[in-house]
Amino acid sequence: MALLMEHQFKQLPADKQVETRSFLESVSYLPPFFDCLGSTVFAPIKADIVGNITTIKAVFDSNPSRFKTLQKILEAEKELHGADWPKVGATLALMWLKRGLRFIQVLLQSLVDGEKDENNPDLIRVNCTKAYELALKKYHGWLVQKLFKAAVFAAPYKADFLKALSKGRNVKEEDCLDKIRQFLVNFTAANDAVYEMYTKMNADLDYTV
Amino acid sequence: MALLMEHQFKQLPADKQVETRSFLESVSYLPPFFDCLGSTVFAPIKADIVGNITTIKAVFDSNPSRFKTLQKILEAEKELHGADWPKVGATLALMWLKRGLRFIQVLLQSLVDGEKDENNPDLIRVNCTKAYELALKKYHGWLVQKLFKAAVFAAPYKADFLKALSKGRNVKEEDCLDKIRQFLVNFTAANDAVYEMYTKMNADLDYTV
Ligand SMILES: CCCCCCCCCCCCC/C=C/[C@@H](O)[C@H](CO[C@@H]1O[C@H](CO)[C@H](O)[C@H](OS(=O)(=O)O)[C@H]1O)NC(=O)CCCCCCCCCCC
Ligand SMILES: CCCCCCCCCCCCC/C=C/[C@@H](O)[C@H](CO[C@@H]1O[C@H](CO)[C@H](O)[C@H](OS(=O)(=O)O)[C@H]1O)NC(=O)CCCCCCCCCCC
Repeated sequence: MALLMEHQFKQLPADKQVETRSFLESVSYLPPFFDCLGSTVFAPIKADIVGNITTIKAVFDSNPSRFKTLQKILEAEKELHGADWPKVGATLALMWLKRGLRFIQVLLQSLVDGEKDENNPDLIRVNCTKAYELALKKYHGWLVQKLFKAAVFAAPYKADFLKALSKGRNVKEEDCLDKIRQFLVNFTAANDAVYEMYTKMNADLDYTV
Repeated sequence: MALLMEHQFKQLPADKQVETRSFLESVSYLPPFFDCLGSTVFAPIKADIVGNITTIKAVFDSNPSRFKTLQKILEAEKELHGADWPKVGATLALMWLKRGLRFIQVLLQSLVDGEKDENNPDLIRVNCTKAYELALKKYHGWLVQKLFKAAVFAAPYKADFLKALSKGRNVKEEDCLDKIRQFLVNFTAANDAVYEMYTKMNADLDYTV
């Protein structure tokens, strides 16, 4: 789990405000996660997430002191874009990014919880499907849902996936799962805070692609 | 057919050498072709083709006079990269680009030839499938083939596709088809010449993705 553990998310402060700079830094290490799935088929997904991060970073860089927290960005964009908001700017990018992050989070959580298909205990399809259903399915039309169903067959064996997450080093599966557990603590808290912020600010949209 | 007609390919000279500069310029107008298919699902395909063009352009720009024709690029890269060639550089990018171009070519040719599914004469699925089978299927593993099968359902109605190709202007279908016919002459000749060059130089690979 070297890949993720080397770049833990910061602990959330009491006021649950997510600092933009450290959030961007931590998420920038996540796109290689999709390389761990092993097939070039996942390249467009990685590209979509990289695109989200790039969008948010561009807004942040335009005025780092003003956009110190993610909430400041949403507030400023709401003010700036009027009726176009929230389907615009970093607000839109983070709206989608948080769903990709939730996919990753639920997938990893399901793995550390030992959820598996008893008939195919070496596969991670059930874990991917659970993550997809909780994080994304609702926002995808029938066609993208169909593409997901086909793509999940390209998911690697559990052992290969865990090994890839450990940067190919041969660590024991239990050690790797332990590191994932540690990683999930702050990661889950940060992403939950983002979800809460979207709910509170009425910034979430449920259109489908 | 404004989209394509405004940027015809140049007529091929007698020696069938394709000039890099004008080739790059003409192909750079093709990626919007995938927007005409109407769904964001096709964005990764467009991105792949844009990537090919960018790769070739970077090599050309590094020495425009040396890389005056596409063949000069292949020859220089063969010399430069030794055993890695042809799975490298602009040679690899053009290897894939020509397949995307052939997809477009066969699809358009099939439309102007009036090929259709008698049960669904308003759809272009049969034309897309024909183009896919002739241009790409062989280079795709079972998974990408499966994704194609799902994606073809997102293809637009013929009338909407032709209208999109005419940049949304309401031209008569017959006029649009006439323009496509004209466009196909030099386009087909240029792409055929690229295919021939790959065969002659033994530069084509048939690995699957
Ligand atoms: C020749 C063969 C034919 C092949 C057919 C090609 C098919 C290609 C289909 C590719 C789908 C890729 C997934 C991308 C889907 C995206 O459409 C959505 C919405 O994407 C958002 O859209 C917004 C506008 O509405 C903005 O542009 C956002 O961008 S903005 O930054 O500009 O604001 C952007 O992220 N993102 C998503 O659904 C997020 C996806 C996260 C993925 C999570 C993991 C799933 C993993 C599965 C593992 C088993
Ligand atoms: C959450 C939901 C989950 C969704 C699942 C996501 C699935 C996404 C699948 C996306 C597939 C997109 C198609 C791209 C396929 C590409 O893999 C191939 C090879 O691509 C080449 O690979 C080389 C290395 O081997 C170099 O990198 C080349 O790059 S280089 O420049 O670096 O040298 C690159 O073009 N290109 C291709 O097959 C070319 C494709 C042309 C497409 C033609 C039109 C088809 C139109 C269909 C219309 C009905």
